[in-house]
Parts: sequence; structure tokens; C-alpha cells
Amino acid sequence: MINSKMIFYVLGRLSFIEAAFLLVSLFVSLVCGNLFKGDMLLIAYLIPIVILVTLGFALSLKKPNNSHFYAKEGFVVVAASWFLMSLFGALPSWISGYIPSFIDAFFETASGFTTTGSSILTDIEALPKGLLFWRSFTHWIGGMGVLVFMLAIFPEQETQSIFLMKAESPGPQVGKIVSKLRATAQILYGIYLVFTLVEMVMLLFGGLSFYDSVVTSFATAGTGGFAIYNDSIGHYRNVAGVNYIYCEYVISAFMILFGVNFNIFYLMLIKRFKEAFSSEEVLTYLAVVLSAIGVISLNTFQVYGSVEETIRNAFFNVSSLISTTGFGTVSINDLPQLSKTILIILMFFGACAGSTGGGVKIARVILWVKSGFAEIRRCISPNSVISTKYEGKKVDSTIVRSTNSYLVLYLVIFIVSTLLVSLDGFDFESTFTGVLSCFNNIGPGFGKMLGVVGNFSQFSNFSKLVLIFDMIAGRLELLPVMVLFSFKTYKK
Amino acid sequence: MINSKMIFYVLGRLSFIEAAFLLVSLFVSLVCGNLFKGDMLLIAYLIPIVILVTLGFALSLKKPNNSHFYAKEGFVVVAASWFLMSLFGALPSWISGYIPSFIDAFFETASGFTTTGSSILTDIEALPKGLLFWRSFTHWIGGMGVLVFMLAIFPEQETQSIFLMKAESPGPQVGKIVSKLRATAQILYGIYLVFTLVEMVMLLFGGLSFYDSVVTSFATAGTGGFAIYNDSIGHYRNVAGVNYIYCEYVISAFMILFGVNFNIFYLMLIKRFKEAFSSEEVLTYLAVVLSAIGVISLNTFQVYGSVEETIRNAFFNVSSLISTTGFGTVSINDLPQLSKTILIILMFFGACAGSTGGGVKIARVILWVKSGFAEIRRCISPNSVISTKYEGKKVDSTIVRSTNSYLVLYLVIFIVSTLLVSLDGFDFESTFTGVLSCFNNIGPGFGKMLGVVGNFSQFSNFSKLVLIFDMIAGRLELLPVMVLFSFKTYKK
Repeated sequence: MINSKMIFYVLGRLSFIEAAFLLVSLFVSLVCGNLFKGDMLLIAYLIPIVILVTLGFALSLKKPNNSHFYAKEGFVVVAASWFLMSLFGALPSWISGYIPSFIDAFFETASGFTTTGSSILTDIEALPKGLLFWRSFTHWIGGMGVLVFMLAIFPEQETQSIFLMKAESPGPQVGKIVSKLRATAQILYGIYLVFTLVEMVMLLFGGLSFYDSVVTSFATAGTGGFAIYNDSIGHYRNVAGVNYIYCEYVISAFMILFGVNFNIFYLMLIKRFKEAFSSEEVLTYLAVVLSAIGVISLNTFQVYGSVEETIRNAFFNVSSLISTTGFGTVSINDLPQLSKTILIILMFFGACAGSTGGGVKIARVILWVKSGFAEIRRCISPNSVISTKYEGKKVDSTIVRSTNSYLVLYLVIFIVSTLLVSLDGFDFESTFTGVLSCFNNIGPGFGKMLGVVGNFSQFSNFSKLVLIFDMIAGRLELLPVMVLFSFKTYKK
Repeated sequence: MINSKMIFYVLGRLSFIEAAFLLVSLFVSLVCGNLFKGDMLLIAYLIPIVILVTLGFALSLKKPNNSHFYAKEGFVVVAASWFLMSLFGALPSWISGYIPSFIDAFFETASGFTTTGSSILTDIEALPKGLLFWRSFTHWIGGMGVLVFMLAIFPEQETQSIFLMKAESPGPQVGKIVSKLRATAQILYGIYLVFTLVEMVMLLFGGLSFYDSVVTSFATAGTGGFAIYNDSIGHYRNVAGVNYIYCEYVISAFMILFGVNFNIFYLMLIKRFKEAFSSEEVLTYLAVVLSAIGVISLNTFQVYGSVEETIRNAFFNVSSLISTTGFGTVSINDLPQLSKTILIILMFFGACAGSTGGGVKIARVILWVKSGFAEIRRCISPNSVISTKYEGKKVDSTIVRSTNSYLVLYLVIFIVSTLLVSLDGFDFESTFTGVLSCFNNIGPGFGKMLGVVGNFSQFSNFSKLVLIFDMIAGRLELLPVMVLFSFKTYKK
């Protein structure tokens, strides 16, 4: 039997946290002065806050006696909470009337929390600053994960927390950095906060306003990609007082940085540099980044003419797509086919496990390729015992199996989604890269419809629901969502 | 150490067989009367025949003393022989000047043997009948496999033969139908021959000429797809005396039939109907075919207007792509996006293991999906022992592992090939479906360049070599080709 009382209890606690985040946004809206121009913004925030606080009290007032809480409960809580957070988080923009369709608002908020960055807004700049803050803030909350945040602030039993952490954190193997889980969560959020602040300050130096620095840093940190202008980061090219080239480098570098496994930063913090710099995953990630920049630079040099501009654009696009942020500066649609294909492949790869980035993660790509090539060696020497090594250690066969099963589930969801979205009848490239972009939490797509800011407004409501499912399934790495929607979960 | 003497010995025997096949084509050319119109056709056949016979004597005159022959040798022989057969088989059309570029002739012949059916010919009808016969004959030879043919005619030791059969026959598990391997090979070729003859006779009844019936049956039997007219099967629509609708149904039905695991036909032959009709793979295959026809019919009814025409076209396209034949009647490029997406997905699936069809095979798709969903069940009940069942039996974990490794290798080759072909700078849809089509041995592609007859002439020589590699790797199911090109194979 699944322990539904415990599930509701944790969901109740989460309601409080979302209410608190909404309160912060309400405060920002008040400061930005968008509230009293005759619009509904105050009420648009207060309604979800009141609902969430009521829910929080109703569900988590009394801790259940039976507190058993295992993998199954962990998966269900995490998946359910991400759907609920997106539903409630959609209320402000819907109630205020800025996004008239609820499905659109739901899509936009799910895209925010899952750090996808795909948008249905055709005119982003029409939204008031307060709402745009909430939109970017969802990236920051979703980047490290709201349940990890809960672990960082509430004292919990270790047994139930590890299952929450495992279900929400990205990567094939989730470990604790330090022996206490709560301390692990706090360290992760600490590093996350500090890096966000550093980027903010560096962007302030580049001439961005305080508000712009904050929201851009949120979107970079969560590797989300929501910008507050219709032409994404490219907008700053024409803003007086902004050192655009400097800002582009800063943002590119931070996109790469937030795609690195956070354990590495912790190792560096405690001065275990040797371990930090020998991480197979991070080295592979950097090697992929550098080779992609190299090849794309060679391939696009003719387009730009200047060496600096060529490399800068390649750096920005590679960082934006491999980290699954999805910021835009120039239209990637117009790049030569080779560069486009490389970027599409990077969209699949994604960033490192244990980072805020999406995609299937470099760790899995390494494990897949190694297990694939192990099979060739088995053919050549059928009598030898051939095992897969990763990060210097022999990989347990159950990890190989579950990583491979991940690939299968990934492809099944990807194929079914592409099929369902193709009902809308858009061209193959838009359909394919649209699903790819949402499922890997990137943002923009290619093709006729999905340009640099990735506009999804033309898809039908049905397709939007499919893409919401994909975004949340992709962010939580499939299993939690599959367990949530599996009948077997609720059987005795 | 690899036993290179035995490898050369087997390759020598194979040279004789290819020489014999070329002799048949020479004879057909003589009968068709294309030879003495001042062209080089006689010499174009004689040169490769003489080379192959010389090679055959040089290599296989004396059987090596050390006859050890295991999986490694089996893989190398099979992969090497397919490359060599395509190289020698390319000589007639190249020497005669009908295909002026050797790479093009190599591509066309590899496409023939691997039963891909992708063509570089812009005007198929410009070729003399004799050459077109050889082109279609390569489909028939490649469909069941030339090494299986060798096993059927030469008496061999069981130990070495099983490794040849395993390496050439499609599917995750290769078994002998009867206890003797030679008898198994003879039964397979017997069924193959009878079915080809039945189709031929049925097409004769439909009004096709004897020559047209033969080459069309060859291309259907091998699930190849080479037609002898520029507009593929659609050509017969306007031929006087041909019952086009009847022929379309006959060809569609035979495409489905040749995509069925041949073991099933053997079971029916020996009257074990219950076993035959309970095959999980075949039932899934038929279910996929029927659902695809159903959905595409609903989706395209508006295009055609008539129920019969709608269903007939859906039947033809589904049969053509899932069996990986690749015949065309109407341009699939103009279908609604949903139908196109379904057809692209069927291109991945391919037909049954143990059939002449390509693709990843239904058996693997079933094993993948089952192992993927087993992982969800493991999450829900971590303490239960969860295993995968297939065809009523528990699947050994090494089969699951090697099937999953297959998926990884498949994706690695697919991604690298797409990257290399995208150097040519064609649109994403053409590049993607072009690689997909060659790798899965289908034939036509989608997109701006690849229409109903799948013309690959515009690709660069480099891309053509990549696609040749893909065709042969796809036909032999990756491992033989990977072993052939692996350094480790030749190390002590």
C-alpha cells in the first residue's frame, strides 16, 4: 500500500513554500509599481497565496503516525508536486489576464519551473515587470529543485528525505555530498546562491540594470532561458550603456558553469582539487564544449567574418544548448546545416548530472557509449569478463541496466510525444525539435515555427498538455512521472 | 590471434558464388539483347567474373590446417564479404559506363545487396535491361544473405557455420530451425524461392511482363525496393493491360509477408499452426501494421476521397516502410504531418527478426519497451524480483544487455553519420531521413531532396561512403562491421 497520508503531508509543506515564493514576487511587483494601474495583479497573487496556505494547513497540520516513506512515495510526491506547483504558479498571469488562456499560463509556468524556457508569449515585453520577475524566479526555484529546498530548511528523517532527493536530483547516481542530507541540501543551495549573486554583480558591471541583472542571473542559474525581451539576450546589443560583448561572455561562461556537477564545486571548496579536476564527466563535458565550439567556429567563420565574433557566437550557442538554457542572440535557424546538427545533438546530451541543466546528462551518455562498446569487445573476446568503468570505478550492472532502461523510456516518451504533437500538422523540423526542446528542458526549437525565442503559442492545447508532460518528465528524469501515472503504484 | 587463413578461405568460396551470380546476369543480358549495341556490357561482366574466379582459386584452393573459427572470425568474414561483394558487384555498371562514377556504382550495388533500395540514378530507365536485372538480383541475393546461401550449398563443419549464420541473419537471437545448420539454410532458401515464384506468377496474372514480374518480385522478396522505372511502382498505373489496383494489393501483401520471421512459415509448413500463430513478434508486427493503416487512413481520407483508394495507399505505404522495402506509388512527402511521422517511426521499427526486412526489428523494439517498463516496476516494488518475458519465456539478462547495447551503438552510428552527412549542407529533414533510410535499409527519404524514388545523387562522395557504411552496418546489424573495423580484433 502506498502511504497517501505521508504524501499529502509533504505536499502540504510544499504549499507553504510556494506561497512564500509567491509572496516574494508580490513584494517585487509592489516595488516595481505595476500593481495599481487598474490591473488585477494584487488579487492575482493573493488568490493563489490564500489557496496554498489553506491547503498547507489542511494537509500538514498533523504528521501521520505511519511515517513509512520509500522510493515509491518519493517518486509520487516529487512528480505530483511539480504538476501542482505549475498549476498554482500559473494563476497570477492567468487571473491578471496577461495570459488569457489557462493552458498557456500552465505551459509557461511549467516551462519556468522545469527550467525549459519555451514560451507561448508572442510579446514578452507586454507583461508587467512583477509578472516577469515571477516567471524568471520559477527558473531559479526549479533549477536546484523545490524539494531539495524543503530539505534544506525543514528538519526531516533521513530515510524519507533520501527518496525525495533521489527523485528530484538529476543524474544516474545520486549521492550525498556530506553524511547529513540536510547539510548536503544546504551546501548545494549555498553554492547555487553564491554563483547567482556573482553573475548578478558581474552583469551589473556590464551595465545591466539591477532588475535585468537579477532576472538574467535567475534564468542562467536555473539553465532556464526565459529572457524579458522579445529578442532574448540579443536585446542588450542596442541598449545604451551596456557592454554587450562583455555580457555575452559572462552569460556564456555562467551557462557552462551551471551545467557542471555541483559536487565538483564542493570538492573545490574543501580544497580536494585533484579529485575535482579528474572528474570523468566534467572533463568529457568540457571536451565536448570545446570541440563543438571549434567545429562550429570553422563552419561559421564565413558567416561572421571576424574571428572574435565567430568564436563568441559559437561559444554562446554551444553553452546555451548544451547547458539546456536556451538563451538566444542570433537566429540559430540560419546557421549552416553542420552547425545546426551539432547543436541539435548537444540538445540531446545536455549538461552534467547534479547540475541545474537538463537533457539526458553527460554521465548517461558516457555510460551508454561505454556499455555499447563493451558489447563489441565481448564479440571479439567472448571468453573474457568485460566490465564498464566510470570515474575510475567498476560500474554495477544494475546501474548499466537502469541507465539503458532510461534510454528506452526516453525514446518511447519522445516518439509518442512527437506523434501526438504532429497531429497539429506543423513541419517535421518544428515538431521534432519542439518536442526535443521541451523534453530536454532547453527552450527554443528549430524549423519554420520555433525561432530564437522559441514560440510555442501556435501549438494546440492538446499539444501544449503533451509538452507540459514532457517538460516535467524530462526535468524529473522520467521515472517519477511514470510512477505517478502508473496504475500499479496504487494497487495493494 | 585471428585465423586469417580461414577468413581468406571462406572469402575465396564466396568469390565463386558471386561470379556465378554475375554469370546469370550476363546470360539475362544476352537474352535481353542489350549486349551488342556497341556498348561494353559483355566485357563489363567478364572482367569481374574473371577477377572473382581467379581470387576464388587463389584463396580457397587449399583448406587451412588450422580450422578454428569462432565468433570473431565469423563477424570479420561476413562484414568483409559484404564490402567486397558490393565493390565487385559495382564493376559491370561502372565499366560499361552507365554509371560513370565508381563511388556511385559502389553505392548503388551496396544499396542493392543490403536491400536498401536508395538510388543515385536520376534516370533509371536509361539503363539496359540486363544491368537492371543485376541491380534487382542483388536485392534477392542480399535479402536472405549470401553466406546463408553458401551454407545451403557447401557442406561445412557445424562449428564454423553457426558463427557465419549468427553474424549474417537478422535479429537478437538466431536459432537453427532444424538440428542441422545446412538443412536450416536450405529450408530458408526454399521458402524464400517459393514465395518469390508465387509473387511472380501473381504479378503475371496482373498483366506485368515476365521480365517486370521477375525484377519486381526480386525487389519485394529482398524487401529492397529497386524499381525499374523512374516513378517506381506508380509507373504501372498507366501501362495498358496492367490491373494496377490488383498489383498494388499483391505487392503490398508480399511486402508484409517477407517482413515476417521465416521460422513462422516453417512452423506452418510442418503444421505447428498453434505455435506459428502465437508468436509474440509476428502478432505485434501485424498489430502495428493494422493500427498504422487505420490511423493513416483516417488522417488521409480527405486527400483521396475514396475509401478504397485511401486504405490501399495507406496499406501500400505502411507495408513499404515497415518492411523496409521502400517502393513508392504516391509521394509520401505530401502526406499530412501525422502520417509522415508515423511512417518515419515505422522506418525505425523495421520488420521481424529472421525476415528479409531491415530496421532495428520488432523483436528488439519489444525487448526494449519491456525492459524499459520493467524499470518502472522496479521503482514501484524495489523488493520484488522483476524479469522480462518474451515469447512466453524469461529473457536472459545477457540478451537484455546486448539488445540495449545494440540501441546505443545504433544511436552512436546514427548520430555520427548524420553529423558527417550534414557537412553537405542539405536541409535537416533530407539529411536525417536520408541517413535513417540507408541505415535501416529502406530506400527513399523525405524532405526537399529525397522523393518517392529516393535519389541520393546530389550527396557528396564522402557522404555516399558514409551511407554505404551505414547500409552494410545496418544490414548486418552493426556488430560484424564494428568488429571488422576494430583494432582490437587484430591484436594478439
